[in-house]
Amino acid sequence: MAISKIYKLYLSPDRNYVKALRNLIGFVPGNLSLYRMAFRHKSIALGIKKGVKNSNERLEFLGDAVLGAVVAEVLFKMYPYKDEGFLTEMRSKIVSRANLNQLGKKLGFNKLIEFDPSTVNISSKQSSLLGDAFEALVGAVYLDKGYNFTKDFLINRILNPHVDIHTLEVTETNFKSRLIEWCQRLSKEIQFNLIPNQEGDSDKLFTIQVVIDGELMATGVDYNKKNAEKLAAEKTCEMLGV
Amino acid sequence: MAISKIYKLYLSPDRNYVKALRNLIGFVPGNLSLYRMAFRHKSIALGIKKGVKNSNERLEFLGDAVLGAVVAEVLFKMYPYKDEGFLTEMRSKIVSRANLNQLGKKLGFNKLIEFDPSTVNISSKQSSLLGDAFEALVGAVYLDKGYNFTKDFLINRILNPHVDIHTLEVTETNFKSRLIEWCQRLSKEIQFNLIPNQEGDSDKLFTIQVVIDGELMATGVDYNKKNAEKLAAEKTCEMLGV
Repeated sequence: MAISKIYKLYLSPDRNYVKALRNLIGFVPGNLSLYRMAFRHKSIALGIKKGVKNSNERLEFLGDAVLGAVVAEVLFKMYPYKDEGFLTEMRSKIVSRANLNQLGKKLGFNKLIEFDPSTVNISSKQSSLLGDAFEALVGAVYLDKGYNFTKDFLINRILNPHVDIHTLEVTETNFKSRLIEWCQRLSKEIQFNLIPNQEGDSDKLFTIQVVIDGELMATGVDYNKKNAEKLAAEKTCEMLGV
Repeated sequence: MAISKIYKLYLSPDRNYVKALRNLIGFVPGNLSLYRMAFRHKSIALGIKKGVKNSNERLEFLGDAVLGAVVAEVLFKMYPYKDEGFLTEMRSKIVSRANLNQLGKKLGFNKLIEFDPSTVNISSKQSSLLGDAFEALVGAVYLDKGYNFTKDFLINRILNPHVDIHTLEVTETNFKSRLIEWCQRLSKEIQFNLIPNQEGDSDKLFTIQVVIDGELMATGVDYNKKNAEKLAAEKTCEMLGV
């Protein structure tokens, strides 16, 4: 073991933090400040440097992109005979906020994450704190160790042990029921309205509008009424971050 | 020069193709079939293997993700004091279909791309043929040479010489005028409708709906009327791929 690792793990004032991190990510971090940043939620961002918050949001931007590339390659190689539509949908399922939040929870992020509990409820279903921190961690690993290391880390430490890709494949995300549940939880009224066709439209097309508390959210159009509903619900879920 | 490179450039039956590719990408390609695939548009995809078309669409999926990660890192490092909203917006500008199409044109992709001219008009402004091929090329380079090579290729051969990031920074994408132009070109009628506030809404909120040929496309809500229009126009552009 390199001397710097021995120092970090056993002698430095940060040794407990380093050990906790090592247990979580499976390796001894190089640049500690990157990881501290990845686990710092904006609610407690203190230092403001030239307009930029001292929080994990920039790392989240970077990590989201790196995660997207790694997952794209994994799927590209895992499914050589599936088209790009399938690959795109599978990736959305893997990197969905719900899935990443769950990952962050499983990995025990709650022990490392710093946030202001008076303004943020980490266990709220609405909260994307854990998923955001997961992406930020990917950004930190990338800056600390480079692409190939990050790819190995994601595949061997995250995707293989924690994400069952083949189960996700057959799980159809039911956006309509997800949306209805969300509205029930927040006591909002939701309607799926079938809109009469305009002159000149094909008779066979269905147009469904999702309306929540009287406000039009999104429209779905398809030759199949159920698909039109699904489309409209999916767009709404995306808009609302549900 | 390695023997395989000498063979490819001067002796192989593919030598003219290899030289054309080398001029374009700046290096001698390893796995030629990846590059042929990157320049094969779905309109002439011949071989159907177990339901997958022999075209560049899967590579485009992969290349889009790799390009996104490289551009994210470039921006992250170039703008250390800008927030994630700025970085996201800048990346959208750089990887916009319009920008990538222009890049493909500049790089002379029209000489390499294979498509069916009876069904596709490569010079049409609607066509995303060149931009799609650009992303597919990035996917091919990635599979052929790995991430770090692709990053260097993109930075030194594409971004630095061809993309003026600082000009893009001050260019505000005017979605409203882009949408209006598009409608004029296709003789579609467009309206930006101000929707009266619902009971309980803040008086200060503006809701703008974009309606094209009588069909509601998207809604924008903001405290500033111009911003609400911009938001609605942006969503519509995204939906329509304008």
